Amino acid sequence: MAGDTLLVTAAVLVIGDEILSGRTQDQNSHYIAKYLAQIGVDTREVRVVPDVESEIVAAVNALRARYDYVFTTGGIGPTHDDITADAIAKAFGVAIEEDSRAISMLLEVIPPDRLNEARRRMARIPLGAELIENSVSKAPGFMIGNVIVMAGVPMIMQTMLDAAAPRLRTGARVLVETIEAGAMPEGRYAKDLAALAARFEDVAIGSYPQFSGGVVRNQIVLRSRDASRLAAAAEAVREMISRLTDNGAKV
Amino acid sequence: MAGDTLLVTAAVLVIGDEILSGRTQDQNSHYIAKYLAQIGVDTREVRVVPDVESEIVAAVNALRARYDYVFTTGGIGPTHDDITADAIAKAFGVAIEEDSRAISMLLEVIPPDRLNEARRRMARIPLGAELIENSVSKAPGFMIGNVIVMAGVPMIMQTMLDAAAPRLRTGARVLVETIEAGAMPEGRYAKDLAALAARFEDVAIGSYPQFSGGVVRNQIVLRSRDASRLAAAAEAVREMISRLTDNGAKV
Repeated sequence: MAGDTLLVTAAVLVIGDEILSGRTQDQNSHYIAKYLAQIGVDTREVRVVPDVESEIVAAVNALRARYDYVFTTGGIGPTHDDITADAIAKAFGVAIEEDSRAISMLLEVIPPDRLNEARRRMARIPLGAELIENSVSKAPGFMIGNVIVMAGVPMIMQTMLDAAAPRLRTGARVLVETIEAGAMPEGRYAKDLAALAARFEDVAIGSYPQFSGGVVRNQIVLRSRDASRLAAAAEAVREMISRLTDNGAKV
Repeated sequence: MAGDTLLVTAAVLVIGDEILSGRTQDQNSHYIAKYLAQIGVDTREVRVVPDVESEIVAAVNALRARYDYVFTTGGIGPTHDDITADAIAKAFGVAIEEDSRAISMLLEVIPPDRLNEARRRMARIPLGAELIENSVSKAPGFMIGNVIVMAGVPMIMQTMLDAAAPRLRTGARVLVETIEAGAMPEGRYAKDLAALAARFEDVAIGSYPQFSGGVVRNQIVLRSRDASRLAAAAEAVREMISRLTDNGAKV
């Protein structure tokens, strides 16, 4: 939708061997996608890459060229495997230096005699970046260009996202309507739903089965930025469900 | 590690608007990564893309060229938004046709008079693919080239992964050792740990903080295919923790 100023897009880039090895389940990308949806930013892609500089650089550059914003999580702590800040600097082709504002933030919680070399690493920030406050443990995230760099620990990431959100350009929120199809099988309504999806091209219509305890229940989810089109499509889907329920025995 | 036959790599491609919108939290990529680790396949990348054919085709082609296997989840049901099979056929440049073996599978649970057009869609399989059995609801997944195409419903995906696993080439399992650093801050051990990581280049060493109830606890995770190197590195990390604990007051 070129030229549509209501549409703001984003990608989430999760950085961390611990996710890819199956050790840790990523919670952040789901949290971010949900959060962004609420402020009118569409998440269009998620990637998880390992703690390997060339992989991070390639992913950041691919994603920042394609989406309005890129949100990264992970790899900004004090240990040797925390290489995100350096990789971001490399992706942008800028220098990375110890940032005196970041040092001041660290000194709010770390006594000066304990601010060792490793901890100072957390103040290394690519040149030209704005800091993002971390109200939990003070070591800041940062934003450079359209890339927002956040911690991997969920609680810290969440405070950083709160701190970054007011700086983002946001679009019109996507409105969502969920219609329960209950135990009616997808195969019974698929053809009619496809016809409705073709009729309401500006409403994204999805059908989602859930199996639980041997029982299937389906939901039809409609998404649009246009409230009246959404309402019309939802009405049409409800009519369809009710019609097919009456004819249930035949299909 | 070119030429290392012990190393088998994979990517997971999650297909679904419902994940990107924040409606549903993807559980499958974590399950697959954990499962593959146990059978000696390294997950190197995860991507989540929307239900858009061009996006699926681009991601499949990027990932299948790069990794030994690609596991996709989602988009193989009977509704109009289930476009994965067609996208995979397009990515491979092959035709897609109704597969008589797949029809037979569907007929095990669907009476012939209810096998309507929408349900028959679930039997559309790219030419040259092998079917992957679905013991839950019968509609099969498939494997074409190095791409394994599975359902999005976790319970069904899991049975398909079980069915696909025996056909995979697997490598040496990565062995893992987790060492509790407890409440010791990462910043206290980061420098020494970096030196150990440099000394044990063949052991991947990561440090992972967890905040819970205002308390930080750190874990150091070591991963290697070589049991004796792993044991030596773990011993060195334990010595480091114990040494720094004794000197705790000073650092």
